[in-house]
Amino acid sequence: MSEKSLGVGLVQHACVDNTDTNLEAAIDGIRRAAQQGAQLVLLQELHGSRYFCQTEEQANFSLAEPIPGATTGRLQQLASELAIVIVGSVFEQRSNAVYHNTAVVIDSDGSIAGRYRKMHIPDDPGYFEKYYFTPGDLGFEPVTTSLGRLGVLVCWDQWFPEAARLMALAGAELLLYPTAIGRDPRDDKDEQLRQLDAWRTIQRGHAIANCLPVLVCNRVGHEQDPSGQTDGIQFWGNSFIAGPQGDILAEAGEQNAVLVARLDLSRTAGLRQAWPFFRDRRIDAYQGLLKRLCD
Amino acid sequence: MSEKSLGVGLVQHACVDNTDTNLEAAIDGIRRAAQQGAQLVLLQELHGSRYFCQTEEQANFSLAEPIPGATTGRLQQLASELAIVIVGSVFEQRSNAVYHNTAVVIDSDGSIAGRYRKMHIPDDPGYFEKYYFTPGDLGFEPVTTSLGRLGVLVCWDQWFPEAARLMALAGAELLLYPTAIGRDPRDDKDEQLRQLDAWRTIQRGHAIANCLPVLVCNRVGHEQDPSGQTDGIQFWGNSFIAGPQGDILAEAGEQNAVLVARLDLSRTAGLRQAWPFFRDRRIDAYQGLLKRLCD
Repeated sequence: MSEKSLGVGLVQHACVDNTDTNLEAAIDGIRRAAQQGAQLVLLQELHGSRYFCQTEEQANFSLAEPIPGATTGRLQQLASELAIVIVGSVFEQRSNAVYHNTAVVIDSDGSIAGRYRKMHIPDDPGYFEKYYFTPGDLGFEPVTTSLGRLGVLVCWDQWFPEAARLMALAGAELLLYPTAIGRDPRDDKDEQLRQLDAWRTIQRGHAIANCLPVLVCNRVGHEQDPSGQTDGIQFWGNSFIAGPQGDILAEAGEQNAVLVARLDLSRTAGLRQAWPFFRDRRIDAYQGLLKRLCD
Repeated sequence: MSEKSLGVGLVQHACVDNTDTNLEAAIDGIRRAAQQGAQLVLLQELHGSRYFCQTEEQANFSLAEPIPGATTGRLQQLASELAIVIVGSVFEQRSNAVYHNTAVVIDSDGSIAGRYRKMHIPDDPGYFEKYYFTPGDLGFEPVTTSLGRLGVLVCWDQWFPEAARLMALAGAELLLYPTAIGRDPRDDKDEQLRQLDAWRTIQRGHAIANCLPVLVCNRVGHEQDPSGQTDGIQFWGNSFIAGPQGDILAEAGEQNAVLVARLDLSRTAGLRQAWPFFRDRRIDAYQGLLKRLCD
């Protein structure tokens, strides 16, 4: 099998109040990733702003924008200039009644190749996303680009093996997770470490179950809780790029980082022949997966 | 929430041709685990014999036995004597036409609490299981015991997030995998390490996705390929016990080992409130999971 080599990168950065500054940080990182050989660059979830879901605040809806819109326009220009694929993340205003947490894929000619609207929406203290985001209604459909079919998912989706599997069944060649997750500074150290390791492990698990490489891009930095009720979120970074056996190819720490690695997409087919999981799925016995509980 | 503490153990051992010797090794390990506080002991897959599936040999069907039968009888006696739950693994002769790879759960009063017939059956060089085992037709049903509901799965099932999820949806409080997996001595060292790490990682991932502890019991030792076509299998041991965040509580190396750890089963409910994955599953959008491919 001939190698299908792909340079991939991601940009992990802290966000500030000024949205222009955030977009410039992302653009700067994209340029650096491209210089290092990335043909595809993944940005973190909601990279244009602070993670505003720490509180339910109507004024935050002003951060939303349509797709195509200002952010995608800027990313389209850049993708075309650098001739790379960019996966961005936008608080999408679909109408004046429906908003989504949307990943948007810009192809290397600057066109919008497609979008994924976050399907699983979290809601727990500090992550009040159900207030802002209507759950996606586009399903788990990979986006076809000039570089291959991208299985783009978003943050909370990363905890659901179903999401990764559906992307794989639909032909994704790569899984990508823009994300925004961190620790609660009030948790004890052991719990903080367990959470980080769980987050890394389950996503490596999706790589393994589906024999697909995985890119995960998370933000860094401490962001205060505007309500003052908590100690805010310490976004834990640790973005990583893993191969189709869950093998870590590159990983970041907790500082701003540009991460680049080379993937051989042709590994997937060989792995799937060696360990043929897809041949053996018991689709005759999976009906319970469509239930809330099998009780 | 009150602690629901459970001492769990597993017995990892090499197998020889003499099946009595193998059963005695298991029994000796069970006794030692019980002495160390295990109320539940998991044995490895097909612990009564060498891993005979390296070749397709009709004579190997003589290793099969009914349930109840000689092996379960011996384990029932022991479970009753020690007042513990034992999860064994038997090449089950269901009739003279249908054989299964079956995990059997003996309750602490010596009764057979239930069984699980391996649903996903592998078939790849050295693991010719499709020749011997009819795929299970009991579905993914936890077995109810005096210690709780056990989500028992077997080996190849460990690569399928669907199996663990279905057990969790049906009320399993613990996932258990008797297994028989090793490295091909002809693979290069890096590939051997990637495989072992993938195996560990994906099962820790099932713990995380479902907020359930996981016990994995694998065999050790080199077993020759009777056909002489390969260099046999070096079973890699590395049995482990993980908590519901995938946190390793105990793990073995590649020698005979008895592993015991204490689980707090009440952690699951708290975790599921903190990270409520089950609340947010998109069961309206999972129909594709029942398909071979979404193409």
